[in-house]
Amino acid sequence: MTEQNDFRTVSLDKSGTKLRIIDQNMLPNSVVWLELDEIEQVWQAIRTLAVRGAPAIGVAAAIGLAVSAANIRAKDFAEFYQQFCRMKAYLATARPTAVNLSWALERLKQVVLQNKQYDPLTIKGALLVEAEAIADEDVACCRAIGEAGLPLLAGVRSVLTHCNAGRLAAVQYGTALAPLYLAKEQGQDIRVFVDETRPLLQGARLTAWELNQAGIGVTLLCDNMAAAVMAQGWVDAVIVGADRIAANGDTANKIGTSGLAILADSFGIPLYVAAPGSTIDLACASGSDIVVENRDPSEVTELWFRQPMAPAGIDVFNPAFDVTPAKRISAIITDRGVIKPPFAKNLAAVFGK
Amino acid sequence: MTEQNDFRTVSLDKSGTKLRIIDQNMLPNSVVWLELDEIEQVWQAIRTLAVRGAPAIGVAAAIGLAVSAANIRAKDFAEFYQQFCRMKAYLATARPTAVNLSWALERLKQVVLQNKQYDPLTIKGALLVEAEAIADEDVACCRAIGEAGLPLLAGVRSVLTHCNAGRLAAVQYGTALAPLYLAKEQGQDIRVFVDETRPLLQGARLTAWELNQAGIGVTLLCDNMAAAVMAQGWVDAVIVGADRIAANGDTANKIGTSGLAILADSFGIPLYVAAPGSTIDLACASGSDIVVENRDPSEVTELWFRQPMAPAGIDVFNPAFDVTPAKRISAIITDRGVIKPPFAKNLAAVFGK
Repeated sequence: MTEQNDFRTVSLDKSGTKLRIIDQNMLPNSVVWLELDEIEQVWQAIRTLAVRGAPAIGVAAAIGLAVSAANIRAKDFAEFYQQFCRMKAYLATARPTAVNLSWALERLKQVVLQNKQYDPLTIKGALLVEAEAIADEDVACCRAIGEAGLPLLAGVRSVLTHCNAGRLAAVQYGTALAPLYLAKEQGQDIRVFVDETRPLLQGARLTAWELNQAGIGVTLLCDNMAAAVMAQGWVDAVIVGADRIAANGDTANKIGTSGLAILADSFGIPLYVAAPGSTIDLACASGSDIVVENRDPSEVTELWFRQPMAPAGIDVFNPAFDVTPAKRISAIITDRGVIKPPFAKNLAAVFGK
Repeated sequence: MTEQNDFRTVSLDKSGTKLRIIDQNMLPNSVVWLELDEIEQVWQAIRTLAVRGAPAIGVAAAIGLAVSAANIRAKDFAEFYQQFCRMKAYLATARPTAVNLSWALERLKQVVLQNKQYDPLTIKGALLVEAEAIADEDVACCRAIGEAGLPLLAGVRSVLTHCNAGRLAAVQYGTALAPLYLAKEQGQDIRVFVDETRPLLQGARLTAWELNQAGIGVTLLCDNMAAAVMAQGWVDAVIVGADRIAANGDTANKIGTSGLAILADSFGIPLYVAAPGSTIDLACASGSDIVVENRDPSEVTELWFRQPMAPAGIDVFNPAFDVTPAKRISAIITDRGVIKPPFAKNLAAVFGK
């Protein structure tokens, strides 16, 4: 198990020359590893969601840019820098709204500028070191989330999760799934009920796959079955990730989370949000300040592999996220410890400047 | 609109010689009407779910058996009766657990026996009359549900429904959708939020289609989006059908209903169950006496058109129904009027012997 629990879904390959990622578009039907060393390939992988999940995108972009830059032929710094900047600008267009993407690319650019006195070969080495540091930081952050959350799982036999906030989204441990991987490492068997998570089925395709791979018992269910599972007394806790956490604890996460929170509350089941500190936006006062993106209706009317399954042209409601009110969140598990209510006070104490 | 609102999804065709049904397997992508007059065709249509929904199956079986029996060549009653019984026994195997199927076939058999003194031609006519009576009774029953429920929709601008309890399931008005069709007839525009209803997508494929056909505004959503829609204040009432209603009002209906009831309760939105009196089982004391069928995992892991979308062999929870506790049901709309809490007393008063 340890070997499987250790694998990274995004990494620098053993030769140190290629970005190695698992192709999420092929899961769960095929396990295909991509090895990329050209910037166009990296762009394509990010664009087509072969790699998805904010932390995973950031790490893939960093390693992808570093290995591509290693192939730059330049006689001096100016020439190297020009080609590097062209690659960086291009890669940033793969998913323009992904904050982690531009953040990771910017970090590499700073490395180049800080090393301008050295020859391109040295800079290339420094870029690879920085990219690996970004990957290691992500793994360490997720492991810290796992360690913070582990005590909350004492005595827990089964949890329910929604969407994918696991190693596919975040390199090695994930966020919501990190405490579960650590529990598994310590020999605690926790069954995980996995919502399939319509419309894009990240739960069925990705979460069920990665937990299964790690030897963690999984039961897949349709999103509308959560109440029936809870009514049976089968769920000891709900654990989900977060896209954005407001200063008062209101949490935007994959559509369906707010409904789960009401159900959990009604059955007296705790709901935990697990996320890195970078997800907490103290400048955002409450959930009402969070704008929810509405996505393409075809995600609902056609499946991800494009088969029609609703009347043509039907009106569709397809928000990407919903906002779970802080009052329905039992605790927020972060890389800097578990934050309990009242969130406004306790989030500011840990994450305020 | 009236013309469209009038159409029956299951009927005797104009020539009086064929069973005419809309092929639900082809919806929503194609509107295909089947005209059947051979018992094997009728069996096939019921078996393959070309016609589904308890009332629709009963009516289709009755008309299907009557038109098939009309083609029997027999010199006397004994010969006719033998062939009729063979057809009846065969058709009953199309969906052995469908109570309406055997109930409708048995009614036709009684007609044959009550008319044994007449020649086969007369009996054939009596069978067609009885089959049409069964259809008319279903339409009248559903219209009565609609009329009973209509006052509950006064001032209502939008409702949310789950699964398909409309004319595709029940000939002309349906059960849960009957009040909406009557409201439409009276010029009241009510928007309907339709849960897609995983795993078999009856909401997306069938309910969205039939409401759309009737000129009723539809917004399709994934099941996990109901809470987000309610949080916006967009839902004035939830209205669903029922598979079985216990004496205390506990209601078995399509999986997901009990969760919707918790959400509706939490947002202060009334939830109505609409069903014919035949759905009320006073011999069943409460929901804990209702056995919930678990269905094939492949319904979740592969879509209805058979594409894998979860890891092979994954454990799946796939109940057909769940039980909504009576305390979360605002009223039960029946063909004999609206029943309000306390249900144990009020259901017995109307439906007890």
